[in-house]
Amino acid sequence: MSHPGVLYPKMTVIGCGLIGGSIIRAAREHGVVGQVTVADASESHRARVSELGLAEHVTGDIAEAVKDADLVVIATPVLSIADVVAALAAHMKAGATLTDVGSTKANVGEAFRAHAEALSKVFVIPGHPIAGTEQSGPDSGFAELFENRWTILTPAESDDEAYAAAVAKLSAFWRAFGAQVELMDEKHHDLVLAVVSHLPHLIAYTIVGSAADLENVTESEVIKFSASGFRDFTRIAASDPTMWRDIFVANKDAVLEMLGRFTEDLQAMSRAIRWGDADTLHAHFTRTRAIRRGIVAAGQESAEPNFGRDRGKH
Amino acid sequence: MSHPGVLYPKMTVIGCGLIGGSIIRAAREHGVVGQVTVADASESHRARVSELGLAEHVTGDIAEAVKDADLVVIATPVLSIADVVAALAAHMKAGATLTDVGSTKANVGEAFRAHAEALSKVFVIPGHPIAGTEQSGPDSGFAELFENRWTILTPAESDDEAYAAAVAKLSAFWRAFGAQVELMDEKHHDLVLAVVSHLPHLIAYTIVGSAADLENVTESEVIKFSASGFRDFTRIAASDPTMWRDIFVANKDAVLEMLGRFTEDLQAMSRAIRWGDADTLHAHFTRTRAIRRGIVAAGQESAEPNFGRDRGKH
Repeated sequence: MSHPGVLYPKMTVIGCGLIGGSIIRAAREHGVVGQVTVADASESHRARVSELGLAEHVTGDIAEAVKDADLVVIATPVLSIADVVAALAAHMKAGATLTDVGSTKANVGEAFRAHAEALSKVFVIPGHPIAGTEQSGPDSGFAELFENRWTILTPAESDDEAYAAAVAKLSAFWRAFGAQVELMDEKHHDLVLAVVSHLPHLIAYTIVGSAADLENVTESEVIKFSASGFRDFTRIAASDPTMWRDIFVANKDAVLEMLGRFTEDLQAMSRAIRWGDADTLHAHFTRTRAIRRGIVAAGQESAEPNFGRDRGKH
Repeated sequence: MSHPGVLYPKMTVIGCGLIGGSIIRAAREHGVVGQVTVADASESHRARVSELGLAEHVTGDIAEAVKDADLVVIATPVLSIADVVAALAAHMKAGATLTDVGSTKANVGEAFRAHAEALSKVFVIPGHPIAGTEQSGPDSGFAELFENRWTILTPAESDDEAYAAAVAKLSAFWRAFGAQVELMDEKHHDLVLAVVSHLPHLIAYTIVGSAADLENVTESEVIKFSASGFRDFTRIAASDPTMWRDIFVANKDAVLEMLGRFTEDLQAMSRAIRWGDADTLHAHFTRTRAIRRGIVAAGQESAEPNFGRDRGKH
């Protein structure tokens, strides 16, 4: 964790849920902002933000909230970002930085580009902190949420030095929270997330639904014997339905592309099982261990001495 | 854990790997057997079993190993059980109990029935302890492996009181190790395991393979950002390739049946995404939370206060 001092004298956060509230707390704790303004469409959120003393200024008026800000962070649900951008584009001050925390990035990039003229003097740098909990609302945030997590920024292609400096400053902002920062093209971000996150969630949601629909296996049996593999899927399939609906709508193309590849591969496995092609199965099962080793080696997860007791023999 | 005293004066375990070795250790620790004989096809396994002092008698000769046994436990890989049954069927003593620990049960039941005549005076009770680690070999076993795990027995349909008593005794044997015992029809066992274990493994193996094959997303990116869902799949896909190959060959019908249902459901999700049918997605994602709640409520897993930090926001 670095200590860069005050990076943005005035920060405005639009939407004070888990992520917005965590950014405010982390920014204060690490001293990277001066004053904080919160704009939130929910009256009860605004009241709670005031009670918690999270912001110097709390408002429902986006235009007013952004006008003096050095940094504006849009932290509303993915599908509402376009409306927020439309509401703020004409009101930001020159030289300010505008970012967001949406889980998909091509649709957000598009929303920003739709107001390119109004935002021509603003540094627009979309972002995505890969962190979260199952909680929501102003109370749910905490300063440590981004520690040892990745934040992906998807800046525009640009040779402008001032823009590069703005990207470096926003990176420093995230690093101050203990996050690691990666720069990526927005389309590539959506493809990577489709693989590592969206497709796994879709599959988990689907298999848990398939299991619940069985006529000849009871839900209580599924629950009882879930330790043998199924349990990991139920955990993922308990994620927030609204957030995930938005993600699949917003990242349709990349998800369908990945789903197509997965389905093809699954058909090949199905065929190998049907024909008793033991060699193909064995070769495939051997190959997939390498990625797991990479994850353990990269310290993304410990080798988990206990994990094996759930698995390996079913 | 109950303390039933010596249930089987002489136990023979065929195949002393993780499960066989754990059964021996647990049976000694809980005092439910007297003498132990091990039959193992591997010379190095036999030498190691002797060094460890796991058994009073160690041999490579199955017929000799089983002839005085009160309980015979076949603990070899699933696809070799038929050969083991053929080798021992004519040599067991009247009134003894014969069981196994294979992960699939219909194929094992068939192997036993193929020798029904020779085994007519033996109590044949197939079994499956749902427990394991990633280790193998005589050194890997430990007495606690079965604690708080399920063991499923798939006895024959029978009105015979002596058979019922033998099933009760074998159940007591497993309960002495801290396991919970469930009786089930063998076909039903294979269907339940196909849902809670085999299909999840097949899907995890497949998606990890699909991710590794991408041209435009690197393995290092997949590893870096795996915390957002993918990591759980890599853990499952690191399971033993040989064991899993055997399971898919042995439980082909049930796995293909479940796979067919899953694929249909996945196509429906795919269609909802393609057409932007947000309501269908939301309704499905809401429904699947119920099963997770059931698992947490059943104490199969804690509510995990920390888990959410990996999820909920991607």
